Amino acid sequence: MSNNENIKITFPDGSVKEFTKGVTSLEIATSISKGLAEDVLVAEVNGKLVDLVKPLTGDATVKFYKFGDDEGRKVYWHTTSHIMAQAVEELFPGAKFGVGPPIENGFYYDVDSEHKFSDEDLKKIEDKMLEIAARNLKTVREEIKREEAINYFKTKRPDPYKVEILEDIAKDEDVVSLYHQGGFTDLCRGPHMPSTSKLKNVKILSVSGSYWRGDSDRQQLQRIYGISFPKKKELDDYLNFLEEAKKRDHRKLGAELELFMISPNVGGGLPIWLPNGAILRQELEAFLKNEQVRRGYQVVNTPHIGKIDMYKTSGHYPYYKDSQYPPIDFTDETGKTEQYLLKPMNCPHHFQIFNHKPHSYKELPIKLAEFGTVYRFEQSGELNGLLRVRGFTQDDSHIFCRQDQLLDEICDVIDLTQYVSRSLGLSDIQARLSFRDPENKDKYGGTDELWERAQKDVTEAAERMKLQCTIGIGEATFYGPKIDFIVKDALNRKWQLGTVQVDYVQPVNFDMNYIGSDGAKHRPVVIHRAPFGSLERFVAVLIEHYAGNFPLWIAPVQAAVIPITDNQLEYAKEINDKLKEHKFRTAFDDRSEKVGYKIRDWEMKKVPYMVVLGDKEKQNNNITVRAHKKGDLGVFELDDFIKSIVEERDSKKNKS
Amino acid sequence: MSNNENIKITFPDGSVKEFTKGVTSLEIATSISKGLAEDVLVAEVNGKLVDLVKPLTGDATVKFYKFGDDEGRKVYWHTTSHIMAQAVEELFPGAKFGVGPPIENGFYYDVDSEHKFSDEDLKKIEDKMLEIAARNLKTVREEIKREEAINYFKTKRPDPYKVEILEDIAKDEDVVSLYHQGGFTDLCRGPHMPSTSKLKNVKILSVSGSYWRGDSDRQQLQRIYGISFPKKKELDDYLNFLEEAKKRDHRKLGAELELFMISPNVGGGLPIWLPNGAILRQELEAFLKNEQVRRGYQVVNTPHIGKIDMYKTSGHYPYYKDSQYPPIDFTDETGKTEQYLLKPMNCPHHFQIFNHKPHSYKELPIKLAEFGTVYRFEQSGELNGLLRVRGFTQDDSHIFCRQDQLLDEICDVIDLTQYVSRSLGLSDIQARLSFRDPENKDKYGGTDELWERAQKDVTEAAERMKLQCTIGIGEATFYGPKIDFIVKDALNRKWQLGTVQVDYVQPVNFDMNYIGSDGAKHRPVVIHRAPFGSLERFVAVLIEHYAGNFPLWIAPVQAAVIPITDNQLEYAKEINDKLKEHKFRTAFDDRSEKVGYKIRDWEMKKVPYMVVLGDKEKQNNNITVRAHKKGDLGVFELDDFIKSIVEERDSKKNKS
Repeated sequence: MSNNENIKITFPDGSVKEFTKGVTSLEIATSISKGLAEDVLVAEVNGKLVDLVKPLTGDATVKFYKFGDDEGRKVYWHTTSHIMAQAVEELFPGAKFGVGPPIENGFYYDVDSEHKFSDEDLKKIEDKMLEIAARNLKTVREEIKREEAINYFKTKRPDPYKVEILEDIAKDEDVVSLYHQGGFTDLCRGPHMPSTSKLKNVKILSVSGSYWRGDSDRQQLQRIYGISFPKKKELDDYLNFLEEAKKRDHRKLGAELELFMISPNVGGGLPIWLPNGAILRQELEAFLKNEQVRRGYQVVNTPHIGKIDMYKTSGHYPYYKDSQYPPIDFTDETGKTEQYLLKPMNCPHHFQIFNHKPHSYKELPIKLAEFGTVYRFEQSGELNGLLRVRGFTQDDSHIFCRQDQLLDEICDVIDLTQYVSRSLGLSDIQARLSFRDPENKDKYGGTDELWERAQKDVTEAAERMKLQCTIGIGEATFYGPKIDFIVKDALNRKWQLGTVQVDYVQPVNFDMNYIGSDGAKHRPVVIHRAPFGSLERFVAVLIEHYAGNFPLWIAPVQAAVIPITDNQLEYAKEINDKLKEHKFRTAFDDRSEKVGYKIRDWEMKKVPYMVVLGDKEKQNNNITVRAHKKGDLGVFELDDFIKSIVEERDSKKNKS
Repeated sequence: MSNNENIKITFPDGSVKEFTKGVTSLEIATSISKGLAEDVLVAEVNGKLVDLVKPLTGDATVKFYKFGDDEGRKVYWHTTSHIMAQAVEELFPGAKFGVGPPIENGFYYDVDSEHKFSDEDLKKIEDKMLEIAARNLKTVREEIKREEAINYFKTKRPDPYKVEILEDIAKDEDVVSLYHQGGFTDLCRGPHMPSTSKLKNVKILSVSGSYWRGDSDRQQLQRIYGISFPKKKELDDYLNFLEEAKKRDHRKLGAELELFMISPNVGGGLPIWLPNGAILRQELEAFLKNEQVRRGYQVVNTPHIGKIDMYKTSGHYPYYKDSQYPPIDFTDETGKTEQYLLKPMNCPHHFQIFNHKPHSYKELPIKLAEFGTVYRFEQSGELNGLLRVRGFTQDDSHIFCRQDQLLDEICDVIDLTQYVSRSLGLSDIQARLSFRDPENKDKYGGTDELWERAQKDVTEAAERMKLQCTIGIGEATFYGPKIDFIVKDALNRKWQLGTVQVDYVQPVNFDMNYIGSDGAKHRPVVIHRAPFGSLERFVAVLIEHYAGNFPLWIAPVQAAVIPITDNQLEYAKEINDKLKEHKFRTAFDDRSEKVGYKIRDWEMKKVPYMVVLGDKEKQNNNITVRAHKKGDLGVFELDDFIKSIVEERDSKKNKS
């Protein structure tokens, strides 16, 4: 082996440089700039992510990733999770470890320890991690035979979880990799940062229970969540973001603003809409209903149960029965036994409506819409306010159309979905087009021709509507391609809301037909769509997006009318009545409290406007107006104020 | 015994006359007038209904009843049912008989016969009955020991049903009565008309299945329905009424006007609202919602299932479990098993809302309203379109108030209920005040004092609101007194719709409290109320009341716009758009059919207005209007027409 044998390294910009064989990516980075060498976290060599310290033995294309790149950030958090495991091991000897991956924001590690971790422990772990980072331990990859690794985790560093991973998940591999850092060793594919010293700022966020391999019959572990950043400001910003998100938590605001409640007597995951929340819901429903009528939708109402055979026909039973409430069996007075399902979706009901009479091609598209409440079974541990529930109302619709109408209909649905999101102030909208996996065609229903046509129509619709979108191959449903809409909220968090799905399979399952211009029977295409997705989820997102400061048109209470003393009671009533005449939802505050107290109270309740009335206002026949978060807006003539808020409400103006 | 011993007979007007002891009521009637003797059907002697031919043996008060009186009519129909049984026996020897009572309209008899009765048979029975009537058979009462009667129906005239009645239902009686007419004998308390010749006009209406003693495990019998009248015109009028009712049958019109459907795939008794019906429903909901907001109600939304324990607390489970769908049991991922009930009522859910925070006396009344869909189990054989269903939406509300607010709140509910019924053209409203049975106080919850106060408040409210009402002692619910509203429709049929119930028991069961002005805890009173009752039932009544010719404001399609040829297509579209601008629900009929065909079609669909547009209208920039059932209304300027129908719609004008 000659030391001065050279290899050619090609960079992303196409430039090529020669290096000595055995050079590491880190050395290459150093040769480019000291800054790059400091920031780089992982290299992609010939399309594969590898440790920066791995020697390169032949010509290669090399790309560097820093924390600003998804790839770099993942490695940063992955190594941090190893450091956390090491810290736990040092602080709580005997702990065993499940898995510890990077996630969207930070990382976690599942720990099996007899010690129950307290908040104080989390702080200790954090400090220990920074200490380990300061030790500047090299992360060293070792590749060994799987059998040896099993032996290692059975004898040298006993850990039944690692053994199970090796014996089960990794059973087809001959060679596996261990990563060592100081005295700590983990089973891991890598890659990792070259040294623990790259970790600069870390926060251990929380600990919660999780089942080993997600199986509720197995051991319950403690999942410790954390996040880390190279720069202190990044961590501070993130913690501020978390603080802000916590303030906006829809469960907290939902209780404070009396929007909804979950009652243990009614059941988990079954939200009850309190009067204020019901107003939000009604406004959203009325808004969408109106828009739908304009677009030719027809409202229907269907029951919340249906015979189980419909769900067998659709293929949803028994295949999805784990996410459904168990069937209701009953025997009627004639001895006939029937089995009903609490409906997990509205589709089969709407299909009965389409099928109840023959249709001509001229009638299509038929667009049946329903705010349909459906029930699905979610695990208790997954339930989360309005976001993850067991009963929710879909703003559902099924569009029955001809193939030649599909493109226009998809465009109209995209337009509606965008209109709905934007009207609610969620204007940063992305879409994901989900197509079938051409390698696994048998996973999907419908012919090749239909799929090609539909995917072409979906793509064309996305282009025509100028959708900002990504494509997910293999992410289609079994019955057709779909578009999911993802919006960004005020804190830049992404939420998947509305959906459009093209369906070729259910028209066959339910034998749907229309008579074409040729006089023959044809199959319609069905589009499933829901611009809000679910009202519960959408309202949860709205609460967090607006932090409860809703735009005037959906605000549960739009104005509080506050007489300063009983002297203005009559005058205040007049003002209140006039606001009500213009269909404003007002609160008349005649409590015998100081005006300052009342103002603070309505400010806390995030009511958009307060109309404050003292002797001066009464004498001058005008009003003083305060706006939420803006304070005193000054004195107004009532008519001028009404005109301005009618305009604000009816234009569905968003909060500035 | 002396023949000339006299007795004193007192008449309703207070006059007294002497008759020979042993005189019959019929002889007394004859002594008054020949007309009375002909018309009278039964006598009330000392407050008890008896056969006209029964000899009177002492002083007595006597009252006569004719067909125009409920008592007389019942006897007329009861005797007719015996005549029908005799006719069946003569025509189909071997038939056995269950019970054969008079009912609200006519009578029935349950027959056990191997022969399955056809429509032709019914006609034969009718003819035979008239023949028996012409035989002028005396009806003869015979009182015998129960044991003898059993023997009689075991040996002389074998009938297991009569034997069962004697051995079971009549087991505490020593003496029972038989009625003989010619060769026919029936077990019967009577009384009856003196002769079969009183029967003049009869119609056998239908036959349907019924279980012996309503028990689906027992023998199925054939229930033959009929009706009879002294005068031919009365029968003709009744048959015309039936014909008219049949035309208005909401199941027939519901299908023809595409208002709703029942799908065997979804399940019996679970109506699906088609687009046209959903519009009716939405209009009714919006109308009531609006009115409720004006009256201080707050809308809430609650799930369609709830933990079974709530219904145990309320006392509705297991006591009413036969009228509920069976519970849903499930086990979550933690192994916890929960039992849910498809909610049979909304109350317990609303009680959770009241209880979710403390209340001050100043906050009351709190009025929570919800269009809540509930599910109850009805027997398959009882299901009937929208009238008798297994899933229905109540326009439910629970008012939580202080005792001192109860009277005002009941009045407000009465006012609302009347307003709602009258707005829908049902202005003949009667009420039934249902009070507790003072002899059976232990059947009811709550203290004497509360009941007295509540019944006083209910009575006072009924008086203050000038309710036309009857009182039903012993008809209260176990939790408090109630008012049921009964309306008369266009065919003078009575329908029980809305209800108001006062409840003292559930506030205790659910431990509801408010803090009074004295700083101490107090129990609120709960009012349950539903002005429509159920939307399904109410719409069924509306369909039959209006025969599908709905007032403009609820008509699913309000106007059809009909271009005569394609020449007026553009002009017609303009007109259509202008109607839509004013929020009218229009149908644009551009089918290539003759205008006469189109007009007939929209007339069939009972659309209130047709706007017909030919070349003349296009040239003169006006429109020709036709109204349903009225035909051509002439030529209008579009603006004038719109102004008049906006007024008609917004004033919720009823059809003239």
